[in-house]
Amino acid sequence: MKSAQYQGDRSVAVGSSEVIKPGPGQARLEVSFCGICGTDIHIFHGAMDQRVSKPQIIGHEVSATVAEVGDGVTSVAVGDRVAVRPLLFGDPSSFDKGHAHVGKNLKFIGIDMPGGMQSSWTVPDYTLHKLPDSLSMEHGAMIEPAAVACHDVRLGEVKAGETCVVIGGGPIGLLIALVAIQKGATVILSEVNESRLALAETLGIKVVNPITTSLPDAVDKITDGAMADCVFEVSGSAPGVEVMTELPNARGRIVMVAIHPQPKPVNLFKFFWSEIKMIGARLYEEQDFDEAIELASSGALHLDKLITKISPIDEVQKTFEAIDANPDGIKYLIQCN
Amino acid sequence: MKSAQYQGDRSVAVGSSEVIKPGPGQARLEVSFCGICGTDIHIFHGAMDQRVSKPQIIGHEVSATVAEVGDGVTSVAVGDRVAVRPLLFGDPSSFDKGHAHVGKNLKFIGIDMPGGMQSSWTVPDYTLHKLPDSLSMEHGAMIEPAAVACHDVRLGEVKAGETCVVIGGGPIGLLIALVAIQKGATVILSEVNESRLALAETLGIKVVNPITTSLPDAVDKITDGAMADCVFEVSGSAPGVEVMTELPNARGRIVMVAIHPQPKPVNLFKFFWSEIKMIGARLYEEQDFDEAIELASSGALHLDKLITKISPIDEVQKTFEAIDANPDGIKYLIQCN
Ligand SMILES: [Zn+2]
Ligand SMILES: [Zn+2]
Repeated sequence: MKSAQYQGDRSVAVGSSEVIKPGPGQARLEVSFCGICGTDIHIFHGAMDQRVSKPQIIGHEVSATVAEVGDGVTSVAVGDRVAVRPLLFGDPSSFDKGHAHVGKNLKFIGIDMPGGMQSSWTVPDYTLHKLPDSLSMEHGAMIEPAAVACHDVRLGEVKAGETCVVIGGGPIGLLIALVAIQKGATVILSEVNESRLALAETLGIKVVNPITTSLPDAVDKITDGAMADCVFEVSGSAPGVEVMTELPNARGRIVMVAIHPQPKPVNLFKFFWSEIKMIGARLYEEQDFDEAIELASSGALHLDKLITKISPIDEVQKTFEAIDANPDGIKYLIQCN
Repeated sequence: MKSAQYQGDRSVAVGSSEVIKPGPGQARLEVSFCGICGTDIHIFHGAMDQRVSKPQIIGHEVSATVAEVGDGVTSVAVGDRVAVRPLLFGDPSSFDKGHAHVGKNLKFIGIDMPGGMQSSWTVPDYTLHKLPDSLSMEHGAMIEPAAVACHDVRLGEVKAGETCVVIGGGPIGLLIALVAIQKGATVILSEVNESRLALAETLGIKVVNPITTSLPDAVDKITDGAMADCVFEVSGSAPGVEVMTELPNARGRIVMVAIHPQPKPVNLFKFFWSEIKMIGARLYEEQDFDEAIELASSGALHLDKLITKISPIDEVQKTFEAIDANPDGIKYLIQCN
């Protein structure tokens, strides 16, 4: 049984792993495809070595078929096609306030414990979401990032007729834009990579390159002074944080999607002055997966256009290196079976 | 007719002003008391010289009696005792999204135009809120800051049984704490001034001096690990901004009440990690004045304990100097008639 294992020092080796028989409440999956996430790239770069043990089977954006179920599993059956919500809920804590998906004892499967970039994967049954027959397994591997986008747009409370600005046009930024468009919003994407901008335009997204155009001026012009109702900071960059407060209108929202490991200067005066709100968004809840599956199945997310390349698991090291070398790329999938 | 006029350079002179006959939709007030706000102190220090013309009649925390009404005024009558919501709504803009109190063309009466530190003051009738007979005129002058607190607590969505942390124990911080207690919350105040802490304790507020005790540790201990549901940053200080993200629990809220003229480093990672929300809060809406009047009338806000000194308008310069010299002081009122 093959698996992709992070070894440290920009190395992901293909090794052989044991097939784990599913215990009570677990299911064993035959993984079809596993997408490579920004988080996986961070792991590859060694940026998460304090959290990730070595060697570790990585990957968490999975489409699969149920191969075997443990005792008491009734929600799925052998042969079901599924996507995986890779969250292992720990013991509830008073800190959680009922929000298990950001709970104190949450473990993220594929970071804190073995992930899905392997041909056989055993997970709790509550992580599984059935895929409709109309959805390909390639697109099924995009459900996890699409669920992130659904979650972000939901937390941003985006409504029809509103204007959204998405700062950063990687896979998550593009998916947020596409989900927001489905809510009836006008979406402006700020991105420095011209190839990504060109792609975004074909998806019905208005685009601005902040290197050549002032983003606040562009938003002002497009909205005729009304500015943005909701801004998504997905870039993780200092200029992104600097500009994000220049865009919202009165009581406008900023959704903080990106990971900023270090504190960054924020214009708090703008929060006060226009009663802006900033909402942190991390993972997803069950309903976000349901919505992602629905939107993906409808074709609204144009997933074909977001998949840059599909490679066999044997080429995983080469694929990580290719991602680093190609700033134009969007989503790379690894075929695991 | 006497008025207190900011002259620039830490000088507030008492001058004579004309009595202005109320036009249509206006009322002329005989001002009883006018509180001195942090904003007035900023003006006194010259920090708002770019916005405030000179000389300018300052003051916006007013209790008064209606002395004369203009054509078409039906909401108040001569003899009515009132508090003033000092907002002049400008033309609506698409940027406002219906939130006139933070609208693009809003003018703040007492900063952008003549304020209430004068014996006779003419204002639009829609700024007036009637005071019940049971409320003294001294307490009536506290309605404006109390409305700020009601607004902040409302935007923070504070619910019974929650834990709030208020960073900064000046008049607004203390009023926020008292309003939050009325919602059924447990309130922890962080303040460096021991005299303010002692006062807060007599008001049923738990207190922490962050100079001598780690605030996150104290909140952790008091809440048995559940941490804060809502944090109010009222200090305007860099340590306040640094610590505010260490306090909320999962999906906890931070209400940004203080004015931070310069961008400050914010731990954005915490927003992401625990899906924290930050809500900017500036002024107030009509309902906040209604609530403030109700709470003040009930005695729940202990306004007697918050009034440090009442001085005649002739001593206004001396009073501003006394405020600068007394870090223990809370609220100073000027008697205008
Ligand atoms: Zn991911
Ligand atoms: Zn004030």
